[in-house]
Amino acid sequence: MAERTEIAEVGEFGLIERIRAITDVRTGDENLHANLLRGISDDAAVYRPTPGKVQLLTTDAFVEGIHFDLTFTSLHHLGWKIVAASLSDIAAMGGTPRYALVSLTLPKKISVEMVEELYEGAVYAAKKYGCLIIGGDTTTTHANMTLAVTMTGEADETRVIPRSGAQPGDYLCVSGHLGASAAGLKILQREKERYQNHTVDAPFVPNLEPYKEALEKHLMPKPRLDLVPLLTQSVSVHAMIDISDGLASEVHHICNASGTGALVYEHNLPVEHSTARIAEELSERVIDYALFGGEEYELLFALSEAEYKKLEDLTPDVTIIGRVQSREQGVELVGEQGDHSLLPFRGWDHFRTKA
Amino acid sequence: MAERTEIAEVGEFGLIERIRAITDVRTGDENLHANLLRGISDDAAVYRPTPGKVQLLTTDAFVEGIHFDLTFTSLHHLGWKIVAASLSDIAAMGGTPRYALVSLTLPKKISVEMVEELYEGAVYAAKKYGCLIIGGDTTTTHANMTLAVTMTGEADETRVIPRSGAQPGDYLCVSGHLGASAAGLKILQREKERYQNHTVDAPFVPNLEPYKEALEKHLMPKPRLDLVPLLTQSVSVHAMIDISDGLASEVHHICNASGTGALVYEHNLPVEHSTARIAEELSERVIDYALFGGEEYELLFALSEAEYKKLEDLTPDVTIIGRVQSREQGVELVGEQGDHSLLPFRGWDHFRTKA
Repeated sequence: MAERTEIAEVGEFGLIERIRAITDVRTGDENLHANLLRGISDDAAVYRPTPGKVQLLTTDAFVEGIHFDLTFTSLHHLGWKIVAASLSDIAAMGGTPRYALVSLTLPKKISVEMVEELYEGAVYAAKKYGCLIIGGDTTTTHANMTLAVTMTGEADETRVIPRSGAQPGDYLCVSGHLGASAAGLKILQREKERYQNHTVDAPFVPNLEPYKEALEKHLMPKPRLDLVPLLTQSVSVHAMIDISDGLASEVHHICNASGTGALVYEHNLPVEHSTARIAEELSERVIDYALFGGEEYELLFALSEAEYKKLEDLTPDVTIIGRVQSREQGVELVGEQGDHSLLPFRGWDHFRTKA
Repeated sequence: MAERTEIAEVGEFGLIERIRAITDVRTGDENLHANLLRGISDDAAVYRPTPGKVQLLTTDAFVEGIHFDLTFTSLHHLGWKIVAASLSDIAAMGGTPRYALVSLTLPKKISVEMVEELYEGAVYAAKKYGCLIIGGDTTTTHANMTLAVTMTGEADETRVIPRSGAQPGDYLCVSGHLGASAAGLKILQREKERYQNHTVDAPFVPNLEPYKEALEKHLMPKPRLDLVPLLTQSVSVHAMIDISDGLASEVHHICNASGTGALVYEHNLPVEHSTARIAEELSERVIDYALFGGEEYELLFALSEAEYKKLEDLTPDVTIIGRVQSREQGVELVGEQGDHSLLPFRGWDHFRTKA
């Protein structure tokens, strides 16, 4: 049985000490440490920006029951994931992550050890990508757990990649593969349902082994910071966004910000075999996973044909999925048969009631 | 009857458009606008730091039912207050606020108009103190509303004031008056109880007029950025913190960070007559409001006697409340009769169960 210490036993300040011990790690980047002048335990963190760089700032909130389900998400994975989401935002701007704040509102069911596990996951992700967690805020709540990550990053001003620079004629590309995170979530939800419905006669063993790739993509997504040097220094990218709400919705964001339309070719969407197999097993359309599945944390970007040709020599991990066209031509999906339809502007918009 | 638009009607992106319209204001500081390169609607905000300055970063979360009660807090006041809390953190470091992100998790009961009212309050506070709200995150929740503010600020590296520099012999000073915010909260809680217990025979009219000062202090606290130029440029301050959890707990924070003890003189605590009157009316000790009342957003700081003498010629708004002493001498409260007792290390620590 895991140890369980109530947060009330150690108090807010005791909890902060535990968190401080976990976040006090060394990264390989000595500058990151040398330029952090004040971290946890002052009224604000203080750091020196790198001269000549612009500062990036992003924040994301995660709500239990909306963004995550603790019945099938370990706190270690959750910590990883919330930090990965912010790292992905920094990547999408063409930046390098630097410092992060992680804040928690904690219901009574969460113990000190659970908070530690969450921070360990958060620190694991941060450290892997050269980011330091330097503070945050912890508070109690009578209701569900909510988490927030704020992250700073840096970039050369001339190399920041906005959403708004796509030009008609550009290729639309994505990194990696699509749909796996959604597939992983579907499997976890199915196993949860099986668990809830299982009879007491036999012990319940979730059947997860055959779905490893999708589960890992869902539970420990990798922000694509590895591609940032290529996309900012080796080629010129016009517009970029990360895929957090689903490809379809991100294409619309780029088009709205750029004042363009786009064509997305269904048969070009890169989907792994393991993802397609899950969709088939669940009698769902893998294209829906690829278009509307959120939490991919891959990059979607627009660049000219000439720049793409440079890029394809440098990495195999990028796929053309469409073209940018004029706003008047709209945002369309081209089906397997060459048929055009409007690309729905929907992703994982949790405010809308489901149709 | 106020208009009510459900957030589901406009969706997340529609809501963001409404927020963008409210946050799109001009401050008097053209640099603030010129150096904001990307705001709401990219994956991260992008800004140019002022060359030679260090960056400050603070975040605070606010939970319905823990930090605020919507039955007696208007959303406009709430928006003001959450921004004021971060402004106060920036002030406590000796900094100048620059940019802020405001994030919301919204239960169904919150309408679009309520979100707008909250942002209007937030923008009102931000603009008044020269800060721009440049983004955030909105999401839904099945439970209570939580809010988070992240704020950046700037300072000269040599003028940042930490918690950790207090030296034995220093005066401990506070700005303004103490206890009024707690007094205001007590009145609001009493009126809420009266409302809940009132009979339907007569309309309920809350009795708030005689408590204006305390209510304003509680609902619209003023961060003490007005004192920052004095405290960073005219005198040398060794350590500073803002009073968010209550004076006693902040004195302990300064002592812990500085490796010192302190004496706090009960008869020196600056309390307004209106605050004392409320305590008397409620048969409570005003000293408890002054020592343990949170959300004051005044500044507590330590400086040498010589520096204090300079300061008192420059502002009437600072009071000596104690002295820093060695760690071995402890953190003590000196009562009206000259009696010494340990100063309790407690404030508004919402994790501990009440004694």
